[in-house]
Amino acid sequence: MCAAGEPPPGPPPSDLGSVAELGEFGLIARITAGRALPPGTVLGPGDDAAVLTAADGRVVVTTDVLVEGVHFRLDWSTPHQVGRKAVAANLADVAAMGAMPTALLVGLAMPGRTPVPTVDDLVAGMWEEAGQAGVGIVGGDVVSCTELVVSVTALGDLQGRAPVTRSGARPGDVLGLCGRLGWSAAGLAVLRRGLHAPLAVLDAHRVPQPPYRAGPQAAAAGATAMIDVSDGLLADAGHLAEASGVGIDIDSAAVPVASRLVEVAVAVGADARHWVFTGGEDHALLACFPAGVALPTGWTVLGMVRPGRGVTVDGRPYDLFPAGWEHFC
Amino acid sequence: MCAAGEPPPGPPPSDLGSVAELGEFGLIARITAGRALPPGTVLGPGDDAAVLTAADGRVVVTTDVLVEGVHFRLDWSTPHQVGRKAVAANLADVAAMGAMPTALLVGLAMPGRTPVPTVDDLVAGMWEEAGQAGVGIVGGDVVSCTELVVSVTALGDLQGRAPVTRSGARPGDVLGLCGRLGWSAAGLAVLRRGLHAPLAVLDAHRVPQPPYRAGPQAAAAGATAMIDVSDGLLADAGHLAEASGVGIDIDSAAVPVASRLVEVAVAVGADARHWVFTGGEDHALLACFPAGVALPTGWTVLGMVRPGRGVTVDGRPYDLFPAGWEHFC
Repeated sequence: MCAAGEPPPGPPPSDLGSVAELGEFGLIARITAGRALPPGTVLGPGDDAAVLTAADGRVVVTTDVLVEGVHFRLDWSTPHQVGRKAVAANLADVAAMGAMPTALLVGLAMPGRTPVPTVDDLVAGMWEEAGQAGVGIVGGDVVSCTELVVSVTALGDLQGRAPVTRSGARPGDVLGLCGRLGWSAAGLAVLRRGLHAPLAVLDAHRVPQPPYRAGPQAAAAGATAMIDVSDGLLADAGHLAEASGVGIDIDSAAVPVASRLVEVAVAVGADARHWVFTGGEDHALLACFPAGVALPTGWTVLGMVRPGRGVTVDGRPYDLFPAGWEHFC
Repeated sequence: MCAAGEPPPGPPPSDLGSVAELGEFGLIARITAGRALPPGTVLGPGDDAAVLTAADGRVVVTTDVLVEGVHFRLDWSTPHQVGRKAVAANLADVAAMGAMPTALLVGLAMPGRTPVPTVDDLVAGMWEEAGQAGVGIVGGDVVSCTELVVSVTALGDLQGRAPVTRSGARPGDVLGLCGRLGWSAAGLAVLRRGLHAPLAVLDAHRVPQPPYRAGPQAAAAGATAMIDVSDGLLADAGHLAEASGVGIDIDSAAVPVASRLVEVAVAVGADARHWVFTGGEDHALLACFPAGVALPTGWTVLGMVRPGRGVTVDGRPYDLFPAGWEHFC
């Protein structure tokens, strides 16, 4: 009943053998054994389910699925980088609710021929990124599949605050940003051209750096709405505007376009501003704050919430390029 | 960047088109729009994460991944049945901790060419099974993939009780069972022979019937250890024994072998007792109770916990057949 599958890309089989040789339970032990579990873990891996504290009386929960060839390529990223990216995307969703991440569950579907070092590297990346947010992997599932599919579920704690949804923005609020824009798109553009430098943008595509702590800090400062920029600035500002029933105007002069991105854009014949306005996957946080609120450290004002609908840039539609990422295109 | 994929099995494309035509956001709306969310939902689908009440101050959480061709075949099961089975396997894990299920998150990876009615049917099955346990789908993710992969995360509420782990069994406890054994294995055997009857065992393989409410009832009655039978009676009793550091002896005369299974076994030249002792995926609950405790309605005594290690049947090793299911075989 096991799927035979094709040999996966990546390092050749080593002395450690394949996951088929290791077996399901050996693999699970390899993922979890000897790891320090997050502080709120009542019951960790090895039972029918994990149990976590939820002192707040509520729990934030989100799940993402990443597929080889769609969300990542093992000839562009190491398994370690893929693991970090999968976890980062989920933890950013938790942060975007204004919550502190508390734990992860991981579902791994992969060919039985996958070399054990590939899984070790993937899982090490997951633990490393989890550690950046002070959490760990408390449960999961491993199954055979012809493709590598990584499913991550992240949980979070609101610490007594209301969740910061996408729908609370009000005219008069300011739009704030914390984190980078356009870096992942720049890295992707470089990779697509078969180039291997500069490493800063390649690594930005391979491993985003979401500002996890900025989410709860924005919530504590009174953020009225928040989202993480996974689809692109314009697309995700659009999600805020639509959910809140408002318009959002972005001040183009306030949108940071890093000089490094401009250099890369010149080198590859692209437009750095396009990356910054439409590139996703950097997982910066975009939030609205009531006028007059002092934005927490690390946040900068990008624009204003106004009556109406949709997103404008300097008061005009920004329609030079298709905005954002949608699956099943 | 979308995976092209092969056309999936199942019904041909209809007027409703494919998921690629519908698009990611249209698909998400189709999965969630107009559905009644579970009572503890603070924030349902459509934001970066869901928020659920966790009145108990703890949350039970588990995740499973099901892969087409490994866990299900769309020429053997309808998408509706696959949806029910995926949800049932997860909710049974929650019940096996002694918890009441509270919510589900669903990750769907599928080819862009998948017909919309296939997804509608899959999702309707998920909602139906969720309804059996009084819960619903509060979040998730949909992505493109060359294979159909279903990832389900289930959450649960311990209602103030301690979680019932696998490790609490003590010598002198009785081993109890609630639910069916061997039915799914019988159905699989029939399907593998290309037969289309009897429907009772085919449906048992396609859609398990875990006794969700029996989990919290066992916990309230003082169960010391519990597991759901996903790998097979002997294998899962073995998991209890190993985690608890005890031996378990099963009284073969107490293990129910339904006359229907005996009839099917005769017809296909198999051994019904083998199905009952080693067949997984019925998701019955297996629990240990202190001696003298009145087992809740629906539970029957199968054996005893004793000092030592491993599982015996009538005091002897049961080694006629390999026991249970392991991935990456």
